[in-house]
Amino acid sequence: MSSSYRNFRNSVSWLILFLEAVFIVLFYFLLSIRHTDDVLLINSYPAFQVVNHMVIFGFGFFLMFLKRYGFSSTGFNLLIIVLGVQCSVLIDSLILLQRQNEHHLERLIKAAMSMTAVVISTGAVLGKTNPVQLILMTVLELIVFHMSRWINITFLKVEHNISMMHVHLFGAYFGLAVSSRFSEPSPRSEKNASTPKSDLLSMLGTLFLWVFWPSFNSVLFESNSWRAICNTYFGLAVSAVTAFALSVLTTKDGKFRMTHIHSAVLAGGVAVGYAAHSIKYPWIAMILGLLASVITVLGSYCSQRCLNPPLKLHDTSGVHFTFGMPAVLGALAQVVLLIIENWTNLPSLGYLVMIQVGAFCLTISIALITGFIAGLILNLTVFKTIPVSKYFEDQFYWEFPHLAVGF
Amino acid sequence: MSSSYRNFRNSVSWLILFLEAVFIVLFYFLLSIRHTDDVLLINSYPAFQVVNHMVIFGFGFFLMFLKRYGFSSTGFNLLIIVLGVQCSVLIDSLILLQRQNEHHLERLIKAAMSMTAVVISTGAVLGKTNPVQLILMTVLELIVFHMSRWINITFLKVEHNISMMHVHLFGAYFGLAVSSRFSEPSPRSEKNASTPKSDLLSMLGTLFLWVFWPSFNSVLFESNSWRAICNTYFGLAVSAVTAFALSVLTTKDGKFRMTHIHSAVLAGGVAVGYAAHSIKYPWIAMILGLLASVITVLGSYCSQRCLNPPLKLHDTSGVHFTFGMPAVLGALAQVVLLIIENWTNLPSLGYLVMIQVGAFCLTISIALITGFIAGLILNLTVFKTIPVSKYFEDQFYWEFPHLAVGF
Amino acid sequence: MSSSYRNFRNSVSWLILFLEAVFIVLFYFLLSIRHTDDVLLINSYPAFQVVNHMVIFGFGFFLMFLKRYGFSSTGFNLLIIVLGVQCSVLIDSLILLQRQNEHHLERLIKAAMSMTAVVISTGAVLGKTNPVQLILMTVLELIVFHMSRWINITFLKVEHNISMMHVHLFGAYFGLAVSSRFSEPSPRSEKNASTPKSDLLSMLGTLFLWVFWPSFNSVLFESNSWRAICNTYFGLAVSAVTAFALSVLTTKDGKFRMTHIHSAVLAGGVAVGYAAHSIKYPWIAMILGLLASVITVLGSYCSQRCLNPPLKLHDTSGVHFTFGMPAVLGALAQVVLLIIENWTNLPSLGYLVMIQVGAFCLTISIALITGFIAGLILNLTVFKTIPVSKYFEDQFYWEFPHLAVGF
Repeated sequence: MSSSYRNFRNSVSWLILFLEAVFIVLFYFLLSIRHTDDVLLINSYPAFQVVNHMVIFGFGFFLMFLKRYGFSSTGFNLLIIVLGVQCSVLIDSLILLQRQNEHHLERLIKAAMSMTAVVISTGAVLGKTNPVQLILMTVLELIVFHMSRWINITFLKVEHNISMMHVHLFGAYFGLAVSSRFSEPSPRSEKNASTPKSDLLSMLGTLFLWVFWPSFNSVLFESNSWRAICNTYFGLAVSAVTAFALSVLTTKDGKFRMTHIHSAVLAGGVAVGYAAHSIKYPWIAMILGLLASVITVLGSYCSQRCLNPPLKLHDTSGVHFTFGMPAVLGALAQVVLLIIENWTNLPSLGYLVMIQVGAFCLTISIALITGFIAGLILNLTVFKTIPVSKYFEDQFYWEFPHLAVGF
Repeated sequence: MSSSYRNFRNSVSWLILFLEAVFIVLFYFLLSIRHTDDVLLINSYPAFQVVNHMVIFGFGFFLMFLKRYGFSSTGFNLLIIVLGVQCSVLIDSLILLQRQNEHHLERLIKAAMSMTAVVISTGAVLGKTNPVQLILMTVLELIVFHMSRWINITFLKVEHNISMMHVHLFGAYFGLAVSSRFSEPSPRSEKNASTPKSDLLSMLGTLFLWVFWPSFNSVLFESNSWRAICNTYFGLAVSAVTAFALSVLTTKDGKFRMTHIHSAVLAGGVAVGYAAHSIKYPWIAMILGLLASVITVLGSYCSQRCLNPPLKLHDTSGVHFTFGMPAVLGALAQVVLLIIENWTNLPSLGYLVMIQVGAFCLTISIALITGFIAGLILNLTVFKTIPVSKYFEDQFYWEFPHLAVGF
Repeated sequence: MSSSYRNFRNSVSWLILFLEAVFIVLFYFLLSIRHTDDVLLINSYPAFQVVNHMVIFGFGFFLMFLKRYGFSSTGFNLLIIVLGVQCSVLIDSLILLQRQNEHHLERLIKAAMSMTAVVISTGAVLGKTNPVQLILMTVLELIVFHMSRWINITFLKVEHNISMMHVHLFGAYFGLAVSSRFSEPSPRSEKNASTPKSDLLSMLGTLFLWVFWPSFNSVLFESNSWRAICNTYFGLAVSAVTAFALSVLTTKDGKFRMTHIHSAVLAGGVAVGYAAHSIKYPWIAMILGLLASVITVLGSYCSQRCLNPPLKLHDTSGVHFTFGMPAVLGALAQVVLLIIENWTNLPSLGYLVMIQVGAFCLTISIALITGFIAGLILNLTVFKTIPVSKYFEDQFYWEFPHLAVGF
């Protein structure tokens, strides 16, 4: 065990306690719960529950596929979410001062949705970071994500709720850029693998995400939310079907591969996300879901062979092809749909397309650049990067009473 | 490994992709999401979520008790549900043309509820079918189930929502009839057993179903839905209590048996289903729950000894006594309650009873006959029935990376 | 195996069936579902679902950390909840006759909330009682808890919904008093331990409780329920953060300990419970959450070393520091907040404080005294207390088919 990290451990808790103290002081100055009418609650409380369930459970268990990293996957996921939601509420209060009449629950919903970006990013560096690095990454990413949304809203006049839909895109590419700064694990590492039990628990998380995704895509859209739900459901359904079909075609033995199912099943929801509320016919959402699933399975096939080795990228839970590429497809599809709908009105079309493309390019560039910088910062020696041999290992962070008995 | 099936594998994916393409084309011609007011959504979205949760999670994990069939239980369950829901929405649009003003979400709810029948049927042949057979069975069963509902509604003037309550009855007897055409596994097969871990995951699914059952029974009843909820809850509670008591009495050692708990706990919900919205006093629902649980535990005791061996039936997850017999009891109870309520008005009583009994007999006969035919079709050599020695085995369909490392 | 218990087993089922028969007869005389308007349902059904989920799943899996007690943890939890809810509805109808216009669903909600007390108490004696003792304890505790609430409401004029918030306090101290009458397990018992798998399942339950706690605290408060939700969420978030920090500081190696996370993560929700609807600023809830977490982790550290050995207490799942002490902190905080808010109006302040302190002292004394008496009753020889060597052992109560094959 690297003794340098061991001595470093107590600073973990002081860092956490210090951060929490800062948060409480800032809450004291920035937030007070004001009285508003309760009618609002009927709509916004279930929405909050849905997003909360998804990030806590869904992602907590989705990331649990590594055989020796179950405690950390679910435990650290909880830690960064509870820190991140507080941090996100504070950043929101600082930056978006113009929307002071917002209900507290709505802020919590947006904070929990922003956390999706962070959770996706952690998927790319899963098992390779220590808790201090994770916490730092969470805070950095949230600040940058809110800045990116603020630029989108203020300068490109993107709507509030649509700017939030960039969350998967931002999370995936930020995470990839960060992970490019971490050393690759040995390709023959036994620990970077799953067992049937861990795969089943990960399937539990995947199903959780799958079931709640229609709600996630509709949460921020007051009108047409039922359309977002139907479209997302059909998109998800077709991507699940396609995932099974393609998995058989791409594996050597003609068997299903659980990893394909885990990632491709969700791709449809990500791809439909951008346009869920405006797609008029379910068959469009279904074709999007099919394409997303194709991209994901083929992407996972290619990136492991052609893309990652030369770039020295190691993306533990495959966020690039699970969330990144489907989000790019979704953004593209949104532009195509915009062109088809508005082709009679060319001047306004040009403006609309420019904004969508601009917001997309801006978000992805900010994600890549700041992710790269964040990766550099996290690898400073002061943060005691864990050695490659200790990757994907719970015992480095958690007490195992049954082992203590065994010794 | 049977090489005939191995060569057959790629056709699995082409079949799936072909089906999906047909669905998308049919969706293009048959369905377009029209604008309706959003008020509807407030009631129907939670209802959709409940049914969706139940079929995806609840049944997915309920069927996970076999020790080497966890991946297939939950994976294939997802596959047939996403295919089946699309198929069901299409059949609904084709057959029930007269209700065109129905909201899309309501169609999805009904489609998901119809899937309960298919999922129950798959329980009877769990571990004995290959994916192609499962998909074919799904499509066949959905067509027949919708036909049976359509006959009930059109000729017997059964109400829409009540005709849906036949779903358990239909699913159980269709599944039984199908399974009668599959060879029995060796009674000494080690694979047809559970481990404590798989039993616990199955318990997770059972509890999921248990918790959502009151919602399931009340989803389609706009008025009196609270009554359906209370009655179902009390029915379920009493059947759970009785399950524990009878389990001790029927096992050799006086211990609890997990299988009894899994099935008898849900029996009350099935039995109360038919009359949930019309039972006036909770004690009636409680007595129904008690009887359902008695039938289930005694049924499981008898059918394993007396009924199944001569009939050469093998019902992997015991759907006959978990869903079939409690549904028969529920249909009977509904008739008895009808007689008690309307005994003063004999002519109308006769008519009402005739309709109920007619609908019941019709549904069960269609289920048995078409199930038998479906079983014959599925056993055609073209579908490469898997050999008995490969029953209940995940490795036949799924890649296991940890095993690949081990070799 | 103690043959005295084996002969006793069949009486388990007769006791259960007898109880159930009594319940059905009492339901016949006491309850009939009357017609009320359905508007009520929209608010109260989701509330019922939340509480139902929490007690069935959340606690069922929260208590699943013992390595050989998984079946009993989740199975007996279901058994006592279904019995207890019926029992609680009946006691409610007998005692609180003055509120006859209450909706049935509201009664079910309160019945399920009361069960929280019983489930917490069973946590203290987990693995040490046989089913008969558990059932008896459930009935006794529910009667006493309802009496205590009735005294609070009638004589101290505590509000209905606030009197329900004593549920954690009552449950924890009743359970502790009962457990003081059971022999301690050997400190070197291998069975009184968890494995990583059982810890993960327990984490699933903990996350379930964590996610639903804001709903639990807001269920009974019609106005200001959004405030209860926000306050509870922030309290829970800070207590989760603090749990991670303190866990590192108190363990020998500077690692995280899963048990700390399990218990401290929920402490904030318990502590905020009393005042959730009246706390005006989130930072107050956050400080409460922080203090609750500190008390829980330090309490678990001290009570294992200093408090429990001299008192000969053995508290299997640590309910004293998970639910007991945070509830005491919450009650204290409520009084302090009351003083700060009303210090200008001294006479009414004195009266208010007196009531709060009186209700607190009354509840905790009743819990301790009756718990002690219940412990004495449960240890009568007629109930065949299981020997210490059979503690924490599933095989004593459940059939294991895979073991039968092994023999």
